[in-house]
Amino acid sequence: MEGGGGGVKHILLAKFKDSVSEDEVQELIKEYANLVNLIEPMKAFHWGKDVSIENLHNGFTHVFESTFENTDGIGQYIIHPAHLEFSSNLFLPSLEKLIVVDYKPTPLVHL
Amino acid sequence: MEGGGGGVKHILLAKFKDSVSEDEVQELIKEYANLVNLIEPMKAFHWGKDVSIENLHNGFTHVFESTFENTDGIGQYIIHPAHLEFSSNLFLPSLEKLIVVDYKPTPLVHL
Repeated sequence: MEGGGGGVKHILLAKFKDSVSEDEVQELIKEYANLVNLIEPMKAFHWGKDVSIENLHNGFTHVFESTFENTDGIGQYIIHPAHLEFSSNLFLPSLEKLIVVDYKPTPLVHL
Repeated sequence: MEGGGGGVKHILLAKFKDSVSEDEVQELIKEYANLVNLIEPMKAFHWGKDVSIENLHNGFTHVFESTFENTDGIGQYIIHPAHLEFSSNLFLPSLEKLIVVDYKPTPLVHL
């Protein structure tokens, strides 16, 4: 049983290479956002710059948040040609480092 | 001007120490979730275990997502006694590592 409801979040933390300009970053974000139009199981996309003040961000500067109905949808996204092309040819070569986590947002502890 | 709307997300990635039992983890999550009842600017709390399959999670096993109206609210949260007590006495001592990022989720690129 696919627990919960409310979907699964796919969170990517990124730090771009110093050689990547701000204009190039904006173009990459536009291409990333466009995946929601190309990959059916990808239901929503949001992004934002890190604005934290605790200095616990470990150098990461951008957050990318995609929403899927379930983990199967993320599996389909990962192997989708549009994602593979964007990821392999454009996005990953522009990154100094990244972290990806997927989770089903749960409001309360299930004991 | 506080841009956007839709609030600011406070995302914490955690890996608990091996010495922390699953029951202790569940207790910590319950205490974390209870902060939403104690700290007015904290508007929502969700958490989930990492279920990613790409092996890009860098060892992080849990995601904690808190929502605030704006970055000022996060500032108030950080210095709130209930947060400080939970964080310093319970949560941080249980963690092997963590990353914290804050961002304003934006659906489209602002060019």
